[in-house]
Amino acid sequence: MRVSQLFGRTSKTEGADYKIPSHRLLTQGGFIRESVAGRYYMLPLGQAVHDKITAVVRKHMNDAGAQEVLMPTLHPLELWKETNRTTTASFELMKITDRRGADFALGGTAEEMAVDLVRKFNVSYKDLPFNIYQFSMKFRDEMRSRGGLLRVREFVMKDGYSFGTEAQFKETYQQMWDAYKAIFTELGLQVDVVAADNGYIGGEYCHEFIVESEQGESRYFVDETSGYAAHEDVATFKVDAKNTDEELHDLKEVEAVRGATMEDGVQFHNLPLWQQVKDVLFFDEATKRYILAIIRGDFDVNETKLMQAIGAWELRPATEEEIREDLSSEPGFISPVGFVKKGVKSGHEVVVVADKSLRTVHNMYGGNNKKSADLLNINIDRDYKPDVEADIALAKAGFTCPDGGLLKEKKGIEVGNIFQLGYHYTNLMHDAEYTDEEGKRQKYYMGCYGIGIGRTLAAVVEAHNDGKGIIWPANLAPYDVYLAPLGESLEVIAHADDLYQSLTAAGVSVLYDDRLAARAGEKFADADLIGLPYRVVVSDRTLANDQYEVKQRRSQEAQLVAKDKVINMVVQSKED
Amino acid sequence: MRVSQLFGRTSKTEGADYKIPSHRLLTQGGFIRESVAGRYYMLPLGQAVHDKITAVVRKHMNDAGAQEVLMPTLHPLELWKETNRTTTASFELMKITDRRGADFALGGTAEEMAVDLVRKFNVSYKDLPFNIYQFSMKFRDEMRSRGGLLRVREFVMKDGYSFGTEAQFKETYQQMWDAYKAIFTELGLQVDVVAADNGYIGGEYCHEFIVESEQGESRYFVDETSGYAAHEDVATFKVDAKNTDEELHDLKEVEAVRGATMEDGVQFHNLPLWQQVKDVLFFDEATKRYILAIIRGDFDVNETKLMQAIGAWELRPATEEEIREDLSSEPGFISPVGFVKKGVKSGHEVVVVADKSLRTVHNMYGGNNKKSADLLNINIDRDYKPDVEADIALAKAGFTCPDGGLLKEKKGIEVGNIFQLGYHYTNLMHDAEYTDEEGKRQKYYMGCYGIGIGRTLAAVVEAHNDGKGIIWPANLAPYDVYLAPLGESLEVIAHADDLYQSLTAAGVSVLYDDRLAARAGEKFADADLIGLPYRVVVSDRTLANDQYEVKQRRSQEAQLVAKDKVINMVVQSKED
Repeated sequence: MRVSQLFGRTSKTEGADYKIPSHRLLTQGGFIRESVAGRYYMLPLGQAVHDKITAVVRKHMNDAGAQEVLMPTLHPLELWKETNRTTTASFELMKITDRRGADFALGGTAEEMAVDLVRKFNVSYKDLPFNIYQFSMKFRDEMRSRGGLLRVREFVMKDGYSFGTEAQFKETYQQMWDAYKAIFTELGLQVDVVAADNGYIGGEYCHEFIVESEQGESRYFVDETSGYAAHEDVATFKVDAKNTDEELHDLKEVEAVRGATMEDGVQFHNLPLWQQVKDVLFFDEATKRYILAIIRGDFDVNETKLMQAIGAWELRPATEEEIREDLSSEPGFISPVGFVKKGVKSGHEVVVVADKSLRTVHNMYGGNNKKSADLLNINIDRDYKPDVEADIALAKAGFTCPDGGLLKEKKGIEVGNIFQLGYHYTNLMHDAEYTDEEGKRQKYYMGCYGIGIGRTLAAVVEAHNDGKGIIWPANLAPYDVYLAPLGESLEVIAHADDLYQSLTAAGVSVLYDDRLAARAGEKFADADLIGLPYRVVVSDRTLANDQYEVKQRRSQEAQLVAKDKVINMVVQSKED
Repeated sequence: MRVSQLFGRTSKTEGADYKIPSHRLLTQGGFIRESVAGRYYMLPLGQAVHDKITAVVRKHMNDAGAQEVLMPTLHPLELWKETNRTTTASFELMKITDRRGADFALGGTAEEMAVDLVRKFNVSYKDLPFNIYQFSMKFRDEMRSRGGLLRVREFVMKDGYSFGTEAQFKETYQQMWDAYKAIFTELGLQVDVVAADNGYIGGEYCHEFIVESEQGESRYFVDETSGYAAHEDVATFKVDAKNTDEELHDLKEVEAVRGATMEDGVQFHNLPLWQQVKDVLFFDEATKRYILAIIRGDFDVNETKLMQAIGAWELRPATEEEIREDLSSEPGFISPVGFVKKGVKSGHEVVVVADKSLRTVHNMYGGNNKKSADLLNINIDRDYKPDVEADIALAKAGFTCPDGGLLKEKKGIEVGNIFQLGYHYTNLMHDAEYTDEEGKRQKYYMGCYGIGIGRTLAAVVEAHNDGKGIIWPANLAPYDVYLAPLGESLEVIAHADDLYQSLTAAGVSVLYDDRLAARAGEKFADADLIGLPYRVVVSDRTLANDQYEVKQRRSQEAQLVAKDKVINMVVQSKED
């Protein structure tokens, strides 16, 4: 391909929103272009890489026995109603009605569609297990998109769905785990496999494949000694017992003219932070409930765990006005003790959720639901009874891993995930069954498996760049060689034309910078920005010794190579 | 692939709606499955063929210098407003609003998106011409879908858009024409290239690539002697002059107690049909106008030409009540003479559109806008003045082609189209410009080029089947060989397993019918239905002579081939 004919120019424009290297490099390099926020065009260079990533994913999925299909983009909304996901995923589900009045969801994921397809067949135990997947555009009605391909509103996703018995599923899950490891290795990405939260997808457990990166939105914890790895949303840790040998003292109210923070409480009472009760009040708009989360003062509440514990999908902090007016309490002085549920003026229910850490302390202190009054010697069971007791604590770096070592915090880009769905969808959807050996109908056990192609592309760029440009892994580069003749000498151009033909004939793909008006510096800058594995320069100077200059993108040094050796050199490295 | 593991079974179910062979064969063969009307799942076999068709299209597009991109599926609605297509294409455009209130159209075609992408770049004359294309899901809010993949509500389309000067466009259009011919030839389809109507796409001319088929919805006319080919919507023909040497007689009203049909007029006056004025009244809901189309009695009105003539997008016949109550006329007796526009009670405008054929007759006869009254000696210009005079006549088989021969009528499946868009979009959209050699901003000249992949797949099946099943062209078959061991003898199975391995190792793809429970007849029927190029049978009988039975799908006869020759035979035919 000649640069003069390539659609999509490089650009030096520094967009104000280029906060993320892959966003800047992919845009400046002419790989992508934004349509409106969160929606991108793939330009020819970007589409070429996108295709290569797709091919790698497809190969490993097929090798693992999965079969490619293609499902409709518009999902009959009644299917999503069958699993209640119009409620649970409503915040990012896009809906549309056709002119005959039929309602559809724009596919975000396709569990219901996969089940609906499978139940159209008379599946028997002999057909199990099977695993079907597709590449298709997925839609998320995100409130915020980020620059570039890391968090967008539509993107090509490889999504797969497996069907089998519970025993077969374990094998399939492992196959997908292994396939994903192989995929990301082939894509030049080092991934951590991290236990995570299933969210609105459903099921009991899942794993995310995360590329460590400063640009990532996923926070997770690893313990390198034990191999433990878990997303912040689900990470657990060992909670040390504090003063549980201390006798329980009598509950008493004291005057406490103090500020509203935890630190104010510590200062005022001169007692440790861990002995203080931390109270955080949320409101669940979907069910119109207040949720009072309480936890040991030295820990924070993990909202995802909290939502899991009570089956909520979105929470917002209660307002100061709600605390005062509706709950007759006081910000900074909320307490589960004497928290009169029936005192809620609006009639909304209040659910008290206690973290398990509250069992590790005796004689705690905290507010008393009015200004400037605290309670001392608060003890669970005796002074208050939570509605739900669960692990709702947020893990932090340095906490003790359940498996022994210390948790290390990482940030990264989630490029893939594998979900155990179990019977979640088969229980909710009718006829999600197969016929067993005895002719009985049985529910099948499911898993699902996703890889975002665009986000993976961005992750590759985050992992492989040097500020000046991208450094594509050889198997993903849109072309193998950036061929740059310098100057306008007819001899140089004739040699470059000839080399372009010869390389192409040898199966080497070439981006040929045939722009006469471009100066050497401009061509070198573009070569670095676009990031092909090899740059070959033809100039009067190289030709004087019957040579071309060859530079690998990942190396600092260029070398002069005899003209007739260049093709072999590039071909050989391609074959290695 | 083993049949026991393949997702998607063959089926003998005769759906009541299997009116179209490709619908029946693709469904029964396990290639596709309906989700809801007009929306299909591609099963693994179907997806394999879909992929192969895509690869053929991609190869020829790239060879023709086009560059692959991928555009967002959701198009900002403001772009469609910029070209007024929210009005003109409103009947099949699907719209959606995100939760931030932004409006989008679900892409049906992507002219606006292509222009919006290009204007994000500072395009100069040196960048022209270029041609970008994509494969992506397209959406049409069709009122009626047909069975199978011929007319659906979502489908993968290859859509391309070219940008250049007017002179460059002519070359690009020809390149695309040639590429399309090459594509359909490689796909085993014979196409007629047919002039057609641009419809809401815009521009002045276009060509459709049509595969002749009884199942097609496109009617078109060809004159095989001259090579003329035109869609019914635009086909023209030579109109013979009738009695234009006759003197004009005085207009007079006569009593005419007759029925309301043209034939009633002929009978009553004992005059030729061609001498009668045919009046057809429509209503245009978008502009709230009545449209009175008049034409020579022996011709019919072509609604597409009529809409083109007046710039309408959808017409409906006026009701008898409207003719009587609103227009003070009478069904069967409408006349352009004395047609008092101001007499329309509702105040709606009436536009009189006369076909050019009315210039070929003198002294015509027809109604007089009241029951049982006709006019004799009606003459254009003297007795009435049309608002618009145009060719609005419907061509018919046997009419004289403008190039000389006789028109022959054909029916077919439109699998591709190429459109001259000219300055249609560049005039309507801001900044659709490039910088010319003198630094001036100039509008570019556009074309667009579509191929529906699913419909093409169905067209291949329509063209290549024999009732019992599909007969895939070798390059599109999902597998090369259907391998069917018969019976459960261990020796047979061992040989079949071995052949499966050897064929696969030789680069031959095999669908291995390893079902022990299936009888020979069942396996043969499935082999015919699925339609792979070769069927290879292994049985005790063939093994007795160290042979396998080989049958080509397109042949009636099976032949016994020495075991060690089978692989070579198949490999060689693959290479031919």
